[in-house]
Amino acid sequence: MTGEPLHAHGTTSPARLRQAFEGEVVRAGRGVRQALAAAVREAVRGGRLAPGTRLPSSRRLAAELGLARNTVAEGWLTARRGSGTLVADRTDRADRTDGAGRAGTRPIVSRPAAGPSCPPRHDLIPGNPDLSAFPRAAWLAAARRALAAAPDDALGHGDPRGRPELRAALAGHLARARGVYVSPEHVLICAGVSHGLQILGGVLAGRGASRVAVESYRLDRQYGLLEAAGLETLPLPLDTHGTDPVPPVGTDAVLLAPAHQFPVGTALRHDRRTAVVDWAGRTGGLVLEDDHDGEFRFGHRSVGALQALAPDRVVYLGTAGQTLAPGLRLAWMALPPALADDAVAAKGRIDSSEVVSQLTMAEFITSGAYGRHVRAVRRRYRDRRDSLVTALAREAPQVRVLGTAGGLHAVLGLPPGTEQPVLEAATREGLRVAGLSRYRHGRAVNGLTDALVVGYGAPSDAQWPLALAALMRILP
Amino acid sequence: MTGEPLHAHGTTSPARLRQAFEGEVVRAGRGVRQALAAAVREAVRGGRLAPGTRLPSSRRLAAELGLARNTVAEGWLTARRGSGTLVADRTDRADRTDGAGRAGTRPIVSRPAAGPSCPPRHDLIPGNPDLSAFPRAAWLAAARRALAAAPDDALGHGDPRGRPELRAALAGHLARARGVYVSPEHVLICAGVSHGLQILGGVLAGRGASRVAVESYRLDRQYGLLEAAGLETLPLPLDTHGTDPVPPVGTDAVLLAPAHQFPVGTALRHDRRTAVVDWAGRTGGLVLEDDHDGEFRFGHRSVGALQALAPDRVVYLGTAGQTLAPGLRLAWMALPPALADDAVAAKGRIDSSEVVSQLTMAEFITSGAYGRHVRAVRRRYRDRRDSLVTALAREAPQVRVLGTAGGLHAVLGLPPGTEQPVLEAATREGLRVAGLSRYRHGRAVNGLTDALVVGYGAPSDAQWPLALAALMRILP
Repeated sequence: MTGEPLHAHGTTSPARLRQAFEGEVVRAGRGVRQALAAAVREAVRGGRLAPGTRLPSSRRLAAELGLARNTVAEGWLTARRGSGTLVADRTDRADRTDGAGRAGTRPIVSRPAAGPSCPPRHDLIPGNPDLSAFPRAAWLAAARRALAAAPDDALGHGDPRGRPELRAALAGHLARARGVYVSPEHVLICAGVSHGLQILGGVLAGRGASRVAVESYRLDRQYGLLEAAGLETLPLPLDTHGTDPVPPVGTDAVLLAPAHQFPVGTALRHDRRTAVVDWAGRTGGLVLEDDHDGEFRFGHRSVGALQALAPDRVVYLGTAGQTLAPGLRLAWMALPPALADDAVAAKGRIDSSEVVSQLTMAEFITSGAYGRHVRAVRRRYRDRRDSLVTALAREAPQVRVLGTAGGLHAVLGLPPGTEQPVLEAATREGLRVAGLSRYRHGRAVNGLTDALVVGYGAPSDAQWPLALAALMRILP
Repeated sequence: MTGEPLHAHGTTSPARLRQAFEGEVVRAGRGVRQALAAAVREAVRGGRLAPGTRLPSSRRLAAELGLARNTVAEGWLTARRGSGTLVADRTDRADRTDGAGRAGTRPIVSRPAAGPSCPPRHDLIPGNPDLSAFPRAAWLAAARRALAAAPDDALGHGDPRGRPELRAALAGHLARARGVYVSPEHVLICAGVSHGLQILGGVLAGRGASRVAVESYRLDRQYGLLEAAGLETLPLPLDTHGTDPVPPVGTDAVLLAPAHQFPVGTALRHDRRTAVVDWAGRTGGLVLEDDHDGEFRFGHRSVGALQALAPDRVVYLGTAGQTLAPGLRLAWMALPPALADDAVAAKGRIDSSEVVSQLTMAEFITSGAYGRHVRAVRRRYRDRRDSLVTALAREAPQVRVLGTAGGLHAVLGLPPGTEQPVLEAATREGLRVAGLSRYRHGRAVNGLTDALVVGYGAPSDAQWPLALAALMRILP
């Protein structure tokens, strides 16, 4: 099967469908009827059947393909009077309204289950690193050295770009660790990647931009921040090679996580890295590079930052939220020089980042403590992922780990139709875990398979085996 | 002289003007012509002559009063064809455009003077406390205790209200120190008073509010934050008793600093405290109480927070930026319970405040270190103010210290027309100091006398005598 989507904007014949999925059916080794039903669902989720593709009437389709009518009932196919059967555009799903997969009801994943008798016992929600690994003693030691060395005026209203000590330390570290090319004066400290996107939204809107292309899956909050700045967010299509990052004409910027996409887990393919940078150079567009977990790549040598290919056209965003702790509210941008003044203005005249943590982080980097810490937790997370893969092979062989080996989360591809039941089982098991569908852009043209997004970073070393065992119990 | 403004919206006769200022003239002991000219200017600045008051023609006025025509030329009086002479509404002054008193040119006060040969040697710009007094050792000790006690999850994405330890510590401290009545669940941690106002602007706009009454003098940035939320800011009139805080019909909220107004330095009079709280109760309006330096009152017993009179109608805003350091980015609001959810939503779902400093501040308060520190620096600032008053009496007896004894700044009333020359002398002397006019709301109906706003908090103990001597050299 290729990455070519079946974007047939005429009627797709049952024969063509049958042909397209024949290989899948044979490989699956199940009854043709069941396999075809699964294949259609998969084709919609995987984007090979685009929403809006006209199919034969649902009755005829079901009859000819031998599909159970409940494939329609499940919401994957929509019958509209007078327009045949359309592949449903699943924008009516409520995933984005409260970020938890159910509209208007209590979110079952992102918060503890209702009722005092059943608080979650294990947390595999992605987003947090192992907070028990936070290097408290080393951090305090760095804080002591940093405060001893800081001039009095470091404690005042700061440079809105952030402390110069930290910007210099980051420029050096990012060059060594990620190949980022930036001078300290074009580093801007912010309170998180989301804060960075909020600032960039203001910059883009202020320069007359109207549309930012985004990945089809991403933290929904981040779509919202750009939209709050008055920008349209346009989801980029996915195929089997991941995101196709070159946006249509009329797009002003592209937001990507090239090293390790959250939540999909893919790395941007080499030719696509080049293509999007070429697009930016050709059109004057901007690439916003979200590198939130770029320091955690296992096995292979790390892929460098896209920013290095075009420092004048790429904004690089990084954070201490994944390597140390989100509570530090420390993140940074490497800005194209031409954008730096606008970004500082959009951030506001007064520095919003706490200064002791900035001074401490600068000392933590320059003393080498940060590099040691990152290497130590990278080993820890690699071991976590390895134990997850091993457990799956043993206990849930039909569940595949998707994406690149890296970061603090893994995407577990589930058998079609099982995401929601698995999430419900997780709630009963006291396990917090996210379904992939909650991260989907409301206007995404295609969707992915049912999947769980497992944040293996969050538990402590002591909790991890228990959380892993609970996860195995709920998988099909 | 009474606090009654001469709001004669008919023609004010020269005789009436002469009569109104007779006492002033006699006291001044100068030639009547010169004194009358000064008195008219003073009446405009002090608000007793409101903008829009119709006066006789400028020629007749000048002739009858014996005023030099340059009183008109100075911009205090405006001649409009067909409408007689109006007291100028000084909105065309550029004070607010860059916050520094000159439109489109390099601000001469808020930044170092241009040229490498003349960096400012002394800083009396208000806004910073004495940063050399920051209790580094005690703060680090509190950080060590706080980090030792904190659970791992304290380092994660926090409660958007802020750490519970800090909210509980603040609820207790604010009750004891300022009489604030609030439960920890209605305390909201923010990154500064300005951040708090930004949040409240969002809450008010979200509830359909359109107009916030503000003091005629205030940090211009704070007007801008409310206006950026889509609210009109309406300056409240000033009279000799300070701000008249009861706003006109159609006002949704009033922003006040009742304990010690910045920059004017006055405390809200007792009957006006009651009046504005009555207004809020009667109309359903909201009072935003800026208590940024309420812990620094010298001599008299401290006046409690307005919030205590009506916890359901007053939002209290306080900050560690004046008592400890602005760089901590730690401030707080005590919210009416009915507003709490909206304020949390306006702040955003993720806590923007650094968590180690929050935990440290909680420990700093509960251990008693904060109370000891505030008492120590309060003595320091009282001594500074005393030495300023003493030096003025000796070296610049025509300069009066206005306002209440408290806070980190004093307003020095200057002879009419001398504010700008004094600021220029300050630049030549390497002294950073602010003129009162830069804080004036662009639509303020009346203005105050020429004055300097002297931040005596900023210098270290070692620098202060030198900064004070430099200040004495530039005063008339």
